[in-house]
Amino acid sequence: MTPPRPDAMRAAAFGVRVYYEDTDAAGIVYHAGYLRFAERARTELLRGLGFGQERLMREGGLAFAVRRLAIDYLRPARLDDELVVVSRLVRVGAVSLDLEQTVRRAHEDLARLTVQVAALALASGRPARLPSALRDALAPLELGLNSTTLAQ
Amino acid sequence: MTPPRPDAMRAAAFGVRVYYEDTDAAGIVYHAGYLRFAERARTELLRGLGFGQERLMREGGLAFAVRRLAIDYLRPARLDDELVVVSRLVRVGAVSLDLEQTVRRAHEDLARLTVQVAALALASGRPARLPSALRDALAPLELGLNSTTLAQ
Amino acid sequence: MTPPRPDAMRAAAFGVRVYYEDTDAAGIVYHAGYLRFAERARTELLRGLGFGQERLMREGGLAFAVRRLAIDYLRPARLDDELVVVSRLVRVGAVSLDLEQTVRRAHEDLARLTVQVAALALASGRPARLPSALRDALAPLELGLNSTTLAQ
Amino acid sequence: MTPPRPDAMRAAAFGVRVYYEDTDAAGIVYHAGYLRFAERARTELLRGLGFGQERLMREGGLAFAVRRLAIDYLRPARLDDELVVVSRLVRVGAVSLDLEQTVRRAHEDLARLTVQVAALALASGRPARLPSALRDALAPLELGLNSTTLAQ
Repeated sequence: MTPPRPDAMRAAAFGVRVYYEDTDAAGIVYHAGYLRFAERARTELLRGLGFGQERLMREGGLAFAVRRLAIDYLRPARLDDELVVVSRLVRVGAVSLDLEQTVRRAHEDLARLTVQVAALALASGRPARLPSALRDALAPLELGLNSTTLAQ
Repeated sequence: MTPPRPDAMRAAAFGVRVYYEDTDAAGIVYHAGYLRFAERARTELLRGLGFGQERLMREGGLAFAVRRLAIDYLRPARLDDELVVVSRLVRVGAVSLDLEQTVRRAHEDLARLTVQVAALALASGRPARLPSALRDALAPLELGLNSTTLAQ
Repeated sequence: MTPPRPDAMRAAAFGVRVYYEDTDAAGIVYHAGYLRFAERARTELLRGLGFGQERLMREGGLAFAVRRLAIDYLRPARLDDELVVVSRLVRVGAVSLDLEQTVRRAHEDLARLTVQVAALALASGRPARLPSALRDALAPLELGLNSTTLAQ
Repeated sequence: MTPPRPDAMRAAAFGVRVYYEDTDAAGIVYHAGYLRFAERARTELLRGLGFGQERLMREGGLAFAVRRLAIDYLRPARLDDELVVVSRLVRVGAVSLDLEQTVRRAHEDLARLTVQVAALALASGRPARLPSALRDALAPLELGLNSTTLAQ
């Protein structure tokens, strides 16, 4: 089984710094902020494979929309924290992707997400097939990351 | 079984208007925005029972933190939409509450959430018991809404 | 000089409630939040005259973009505060509008803004003339509010 | 006149990537987003001098609050853009700082800000003197950047 390419693995760990804009009056990161962090990480994962969101929109008339999401908040992140979002691709479907994402501070997990994103045709607002070039680029990543997961 | 008080029921349907700030370049409400709408609705539900967030923080040293959340995105909301967030209390625990929340536009469900919020002592950052006055205020709401749910 | 119509005056005072999403770790409303509040108020002012943003976009291919803005922060707003944004139209130009906006809590001014917004053709991204129907609707508001200002 | 230290100069140019969260339905960066970008850049400027916001809050009971801000929007930023925020310190006062900040894409200026931030004692909410160690760290930066400005 082919291991994921090193650059794909690098893309899969994305750093986020916590600024005032991310925090709330309870002194911690506002709960919806983790969704923004996770979306930045997914965007960089796709960009690392050559599929920027803006290019998908302009050339393919496509946007990725979140279809379903679950998140467990384990420990709060705070102002100035340096976080890492680790993203694992767990399924590549015809019109959607499943990912597991973890927001970490050093070796602590702060939040864990499972996310399903689907391609959407912007003109019609309806589900669209993932471009085959994107599916091809994602396939080894899916296999590699699953094998990593199985090995743990 | 006692039905929920009318004012509690009113508080449970909370209106939200979609502004530019809520939308993104795909022309729809950004997926994390629904979490903000749902949190506003929970805040008003508590305020309708006499428990404002600021008072809970100042008098009780307490904040509600989301512990777990799942959301299904069914149809996108768009600029200028008038939405309603319907909140149902499904469980009142010692330190946490479970709610089901639906974001609607007219008679369409756009997103459905299940949310667990827990009371947090701000000084220590640790879970805290819900104030008994709050539990007393929530109890009939829980029963009433469950009976409504069962009757559907 | 014709006084502004009562409904326009009503539209010009817009209520905003402060939620957790608006606050930051310093315990106050994040400074960029006031811009969101002011934009909601401008949107409602236009909607009150029959010009919703979504309709302007769909029918006219137009969006309003902020071209210039200045804001003085006088006192901080806090969680749960009930604010009012008072908007005064001070100039209606061919392609832009000038407004003065004040964010108030009870009788205290918390922030004062001067804002210039310009119409933008979405297809080209270039400045566009304001629809004449909108200019006609705004004209009495401009005169009336200026006369009010002069009278103070 | 001592030139600013190279690391301070590096801190003064801060990169920002535009994500979906930053854009709105007009397809451009929402106008309040530039304030968030500028605040991140100010935070990194201070951090580069050894003054993290969280440390200022925890050790000094201080937060920086924006007191006054003006922004000119010249050209819109879009999804996926790589921006740079260039920050120049123009005045170090007893309780406040004045900065000029520019948001750039390649060699185009997209937005220009002038910002005054003031130190605030978190306990009282009142203005506080800047820590002298911070003033000392900022002084050469102010001189150096002013001399750079004069030389242009």
